[in-house]
Amino acid sequence: MIQTLEWTDKGVRFIDQTKLPTEEVYVNCTTHEQVADVIRNMVVRGAPAIGVAAAMGIALGVQNSKAENGADLKKDFDQICEIIRQTRPTAVNLFWAIRRMQEKFETLRVRPVAQIKQALIEESQRMHAEDIAANQAMGRYGATALGVIRAAVEQGKKIHVYADETRPFLQGSRLTAWELMKDGIPTTVISDNMAGAMMNQGKIGAIVVGADRIAANGDVANKIGTYTVAVLAKEHGIPFYVAAPISTVDLDTPDGGKIPIEQRNPREVTHIAGRQMVPDGVEIENPAFDVTPAKYVTAIITERGIARAPYEESLRQLAQAPTNKYS
Amino acid sequence: MIQTLEWTDKGVRFIDQTKLPTEEVYVNCTTHEQVADVIRNMVVRGAPAIGVAAAMGIALGVQNSKAENGADLKKDFDQICEIIRQTRPTAVNLFWAIRRMQEKFETLRVRPVAQIKQALIEESQRMHAEDIAANQAMGRYGATALGVIRAAVEQGKKIHVYADETRPFLQGSRLTAWELMKDGIPTTVISDNMAGAMMNQGKIGAIVVGADRIAANGDVANKIGTYTVAVLAKEHGIPFYVAAPISTVDLDTPDGGKIPIEQRNPREVTHIAGRQMVPDGVEIENPAFDVTPAKYVTAIITERGIARAPYEESLRQLAQAPTNKYS
Repeated sequence: MIQTLEWTDKGVRFIDQTKLPTEEVYVNCTTHEQVADVIRNMVVRGAPAIGVAAAMGIALGVQNSKAENGADLKKDFDQICEIIRQTRPTAVNLFWAIRRMQEKFETLRVRPVAQIKQALIEESQRMHAEDIAANQAMGRYGATALGVIRAAVEQGKKIHVYADETRPFLQGSRLTAWELMKDGIPTTVISDNMAGAMMNQGKIGAIVVGADRIAANGDVANKIGTYTVAVLAKEHGIPFYVAAPISTVDLDTPDGGKIPIEQRNPREVTHIAGRQMVPDGVEIENPAFDVTPAKYVTAIITERGIARAPYEESLRQLAQAPTNKYS
Repeated sequence: MIQTLEWTDKGVRFIDQTKLPTEEVYVNCTTHEQVADVIRNMVVRGAPAIGVAAAMGIALGVQNSKAENGADLKKDFDQICEIIRQTRPTAVNLFWAIRRMQEKFETLRVRPVAQIKQALIEESQRMHAEDIAANQAMGRYGATALGVIRAAVEQGKKIHVYADETRPFLQGSRLTAWELMKDGIPTTVISDNMAGAMMNQGKIGAIVVGADRIAANGDVANKIGTYTVAVLAKEHGIPFYVAAPISTVDLDTPDGGKIPIEQRNPREVTHIAGRQMVPDGVEIENPAFDVTPAKYVTAIITERGIARAPYEESLRQLAQAPTNKYS
């Protein structure tokens, strides 16, 4: 399988997700500013990958620091974290990754600068390894939408995926469909506005979506369009599952109304492949995410187990379980 | 206002709707085959315009006929009608226009060839004039979505339109938004998957859609995505109006299940502005329309008046009213 991102001797290497599926182009970052751009421009995307990218970006910035003592290194570290923090406001994994790197730094303050640098690089690589392990734990549970589908296929279930193309960035047609094809899973791409018609025709047996942040009450922030699909699922009596790593659950956010929603560049809507599709002077909305209230969610699937309503209780139990490998 | 299509001495002139809003390009057709292509490739679109285009295409084909007597002209006429009929299966106005030209031909059979040709040209122009008059009658009722919005603005209502971009052909962003801009009506374009989020944020007070065919029971075939919006409207308690000329009501089609739905070229979904967005090997669905059951429809607005449930009764009354200027 293709590596989304990788720590190398020459920097952090990302596959450019904006060029898929027609081109497999790699981007190499040697500074934390470059990593911040990569996150902001969606060269890398998906909540868990953004978290790992943030950690590696911080490790890279610290590695490049000219500081000669722990106090100066801490100043650089704080600035680096701030630059990474400013990239995208919704995905909680970004903040979780920064916090974890901060906590690691705290435990290292009295060490020599070279040791701190090395330990932060190792911490970011450990987070990457844990993310891969969490993905593999999906053989049992499945903490991404794709993981759930792969697990179902491995269990011998006959699966045909209808992937919404997911405007404006077309993650569904460009990335989800591409990954499903690589796995040999039969896939049909539809434009987002066909979802209702497909459900009404009885073609959809279950819906699986991801999450960028899950509030304590089970409200789910995920890629724009998720809420529309959730309402359609309810109308057609189709189960609606959210698959996400436990790191996506943010117990400090009480409900979806408190999740900040990133507004992205209008040009993502107005221009496709460089061609202008919307007349000048028209306003544009481009929220990158929407919030699906918990009442639409049949269950939340994590690598630790499955949460069902009431989510206040079930999510807290999963997130605070003693086997929490993320804290 | 820009003419969608026009009968001229040199043929039928269409504004190329596939090039809007960035280019205003005109296409001139001198044969009925060219008009058939223009309908098929959506250079012209929208149910009423397709009807007028069909009539003018037939008139053009008859004008070009080498037949020297009424019987031979009838053979050519039947072939021409068949070619026009094969273009698009869902829009009932196409078939209504062909039938009206056939009925006209029947009344002319014994006339000299030149008179028949002239009468058919005049009939197609009359249909165009009636379409324009029906659009103006919308000052009172509004038989297109845009007509309803214009009427509301003229009544001094403060209107801000959220236009779904309407993938895959982007009629909403390219055409609806462009027409609204020309009229100076404030407009925001959203991608189709944002519709639910906008409604949930309380930004939408009413929904107005068009129709390509309305069955006798009030089921509505319209541009793909309409059904999704209807379900969302119901969930949010937002009124959902269909605006369409009475010629769109097809009393011979008992319900939506009997309306044939056109499947269009997968390339409309896979490629945007010439760039491939979907990996090879993935299947594609591309229905041009979906069917919204009557139970989701608050009211159907025509130039003859407003139909409400039970639609069997109200639509029949409007369609069979003695002032029927279309039959």
